[in-house]
Amino acid sequence: MNDVEIIYLERPKFKSPVLIEGLPGIGLVGKIAAEHMIEELKAKKFAELYSYYLPPQVNIQKDNTVKLVNMEFYYWIDSSKHKELIILIGDFQAITPDSQYLITDYILDLAQECNVKRIYTLGGLGTGTITKNPRVFGATTSKELVEEMRKYGVVFRGSGSIFGASGLLLGMGMLRGFEGVCLMGETHGQIIDAKSAEALLRVLTKILDIEIDMTEISKKAKETEKQLNAMSKMIEEQIKTMERQEKYLSETPTYIR
Amino acid sequence: MNDVEIIYLERPKFKSPVLIEGLPGIGLVGKIAAEHMIEELKAKKFAELYSYYLPPQVNIQKDNTVKLVNMEFYYWIDSSKHKELIILIGDFQAITPDSQYLITDYILDLAQECNVKRIYTLGGLGTGTITKNPRVFGATTSKELVEEMRKYGVVFRGSGSIFGASGLLLGMGMLRGFEGVCLMGETHGQIIDAKSAEALLRVLTKILDIEIDMTEISKKAKETEKQLNAMSKMIEEQIKTMERQEKYLSETPTYIR
Amino acid sequence: MNDVEIIYLERPKFKSPVLIEGLPGIGLVGKIAAEHMIEELKAKKFAELYSYYLPPQVNIQKDNTVKLVNMEFYYWIDSSKHKELIILIGDFQAITPDSQYLITDYILDLAQECNVKRIYTLGGLGTGTITKNPRVFGATTSKELVEEMRKYGVVFRGSGSIFGASGLLLGMGMLRGFEGVCLMGETHGQIIDAKSAEALLRVLTKILDIEIDMTEISKKAKETEKQLNAMSKMIEEQIKTMERQEKYLSETPTYIR
Amino acid sequence: MNDVEIIYLERPKFKSPVLIEGLPGIGLVGKIAAEHMIEELKAKKFAELYSYYLPPQVNIQKDNTVKLVNMEFYYWIDSSKHKELIILIGDFQAITPDSQYLITDYILDLAQECNVKRIYTLGGLGTGTITKNPRVFGATTSKELVEEMRKYGVVFRGSGSIFGASGLLLGMGMLRGFEGVCLMGETHGQIIDAKSAEALLRVLTKILDIEIDMTEISKKAKETEKQLNAMSKMIEEQIKTMERQEKYLSETPTYIR
Repeated sequence: MNDVEIIYLERPKFKSPVLIEGLPGIGLVGKIAAEHMIEELKAKKFAELYSYYLPPQVNIQKDNTVKLVNMEFYYWIDSSKHKELIILIGDFQAITPDSQYLITDYILDLAQECNVKRIYTLGGLGTGTITKNPRVFGATTSKELVEEMRKYGVVFRGSGSIFGASGLLLGMGMLRGFEGVCLMGETHGQIIDAKSAEALLRVLTKILDIEIDMTEISKKAKETEKQLNAMSKMIEEQIKTMERQEKYLSETPTYIR
Repeated sequence: MNDVEIIYLERPKFKSPVLIEGLPGIGLVGKIAAEHMIEELKAKKFAELYSYYLPPQVNIQKDNTVKLVNMEFYYWIDSSKHKELIILIGDFQAITPDSQYLITDYILDLAQECNVKRIYTLGGLGTGTITKNPRVFGATTSKELVEEMRKYGVVFRGSGSIFGASGLLLGMGMLRGFEGVCLMGETHGQIIDAKSAEALLRVLTKILDIEIDMTEISKKAKETEKQLNAMSKMIEEQIKTMERQEKYLSETPTYIR
Repeated sequence: MNDVEIIYLERPKFKSPVLIEGLPGIGLVGKIAAEHMIEELKAKKFAELYSYYLPPQVNIQKDNTVKLVNMEFYYWIDSSKHKELIILIGDFQAITPDSQYLITDYILDLAQECNVKRIYTLGGLGTGTITKNPRVFGATTSKELVEEMRKYGVVFRGSGSIFGASGLLLGMGMLRGFEGVCLMGETHGQIIDAKSAEALLRVLTKILDIEIDMTEISKKAKETEKQLNAMSKMIEEQIKTMERQEKYLSETPTYIR
Repeated sequence: MNDVEIIYLERPKFKSPVLIEGLPGIGLVGKIAAEHMIEELKAKKFAELYSYYLPPQVNIQKDNTVKLVNMEFYYWIDSSKHKELIILIGDFQAITPDSQYLITDYILDLAQECNVKRIYTLGGLGTGTITKNPRVFGATTSKELVEEMRKYGVVFRGSGSIFGASGLLLGMGMLRGFEGVCLMGETHGQIIDAKSAEALLRVLTKILDIEIDMTEISKKAKETEKQLNAMSKMIEEQIKTMERQEKYLSETPTYIR
């Protein structure tokens, strides 16, 4: 096995598919969205990427067999509507900075071979706060794409950084002639956020002009909402406790402080 | 010296041996079990693996000479019963994630050259609790093997991860056509556990259909039991102390808390 | 993409330019100075360096497009006065020790191709104290250069170390026949210090015998000064508080201490 | 520059020199001893080793010029007495585990080219305690060498590990046919220990059957002794303070504890 190895299970005939990346990242927003797409579209796995730069572990599956951690490429083709998607998901991102670059280069090689022109990378944008209606932020490889995306309600902030595969696929992709858009669901940052993933997916399906049943992800989003509410209450109580302490201390004679 | 180098001391003629891996891991369960097998079967060392990715150190031996840290391959052949074993032990596992993959690849190369078809990897499964009768957990490369192993009392849980060589030999081995079983002795996780190793070995010898004298490992298991009992008492006392503090605090006027 | 890749946007014809390095380092002193030079001289970008050993991220720019982090080479030629400069800036330095060496080697390759003979590396020298009039410290590749630099007011201390590109360009450059000078602006170390950068630039322009408008950097220096004054007051108050605590404790009965 | 590069300044004609390694390690014991030998024997530098795996820094020397950190090989030949020494010193050891192996391999290459048969590696053995008369501990590549060394008062303990170059030169050297001895001066471990270096050197010169003026190292040893005495007193006082606290606490009513 080479240090990065892509094993093809099938060689689908693509005309010019769109690549969608949903590797794990902040709030698992991109991963949840991409996995929901795969499930609802019944997309088919056609390639697996294994690497020395993923964690050295196997996961035990429900049937008690093991699976070496990897990234997986799925495809979905709707010939009648001329739609072709490649969706990339995975157990992990590469675990060292330089292997992030290396593996992104391999993904771009695959994209090139499949004649991909445009890449959508999905992620979360952690704000540290709890939002009722998560927005979808964007960054792109060209000004034209910024304008195109604004039509779908994507919000642009003109600053910040994008780490890992979602950033590198765009940054390294640019140097190789790909056009790309990163879509980031607004999220707290310390919670698995299906609600933000749902918001992200609603925008993405509009952009792609495809229809996806949202029932399952909406259910998960409801659960996220409950967690966020609980979290919200917890924070409120913490603040109250702190205020009480503050007050108590201010009334205590100074020589103890 | 290359970054991984296997030095053969002998080239035994194998028909189709079974590979047993007992590198250091949780509770040293696999290592103790494998070393006991080597000792009791009087297995013979036939190859040494040295690597840049083992710690940069030599160990001073009883006779005051030094030994570069390594992994070692032993073999045992019982021609009359058509039994052939290769047993892998070592001072350390590879010390970086990517070299875990690399060295596993070298081990699989050796296994392939020796015509190995099946691999047993031995390890511990840390539960954080103290058990009287440690169970032996399993994970395999196929559903058929799950059923086969259940007959020997191996317990399956359908979840979890296996880290390091014990996992990778199965996960990477699968991709190269090996079949494999990971056997994990139930263990606390923070103690060297000969008792769990003994339990593991009792299952393994049944699976392999070989007989091994257990006297020595049973002695070590008794020592482990004493340590576990001592640990158990210590924990009980800690709990009592904590309860007392709890009580004391609850009786102290609130403004101090 | 290779693990280090230099992309040329243009191949300027150099006779024998001077290389000036202003990558990020202590107090960002060198970076601020180099960027000011580029701006005021209207130096032109001619090459970009990308590498697996820079952080795996893109930065979102004001126009909402992304930029893969990199290092950039600018040039400025004043034919009438026979002045040629190559100025190196960047988002980051290489992020591992060995890639610091590797990337420096690539920079020296470019320098050699462009017929560079002399290198100035710019940095900060962190003292942990706040200075009104930051000095400019130096170290060079030869005793003759020490004497040459002293004429411009560069201060030499005969000890210390220089880390990263500013050090390696000199140390590795020496082995390849380059002559070099490291200029370090005196700085606190924990603040972005435009004032030190200004002092550094005043010395450098004298050495290079070129004129640069200092209005913009002087404005930034004023801001730094304000921050330093604020910091200075904060430290004073901390000292007073500590003295008070000290006093309080010394008057408290001993059995409590 | 390659990732490890040895630059020869001279190619001395050796018959069969002994290699002595004194790279920095515990208490700098080996380094101090080796540097003293170089100085007193007026040994001559003949090769420099540079590497990506040394820290990325230059050191500023007394004359204000910079020096890229490196390892250096010196030689000393006394033709009349048929004595030939190669002495290896350096600013640092390799900074990653795998580069420790890599650089040791390069050193062994040089040793082989120079026809070295025997290697002495010098180090410290940290005991955490303060000793009046530091012993010299040993480990070797063969039982015969153990007996040989015992004659010179080297003490053997039959256990422990040796980390870094001092260990690897023996362990990797063995695999390549070198014979080797590691000599370790007894030392506290957290102090630069010229006294231990002196003791080590007294044993080594006896083994090598050469004479070296010990005046300078004895002076340094006296300074170490002073530091050790001061340290000793400090520890005593700490113990007293702790006993007082202990006593105070034991007399305080329990509900406060």
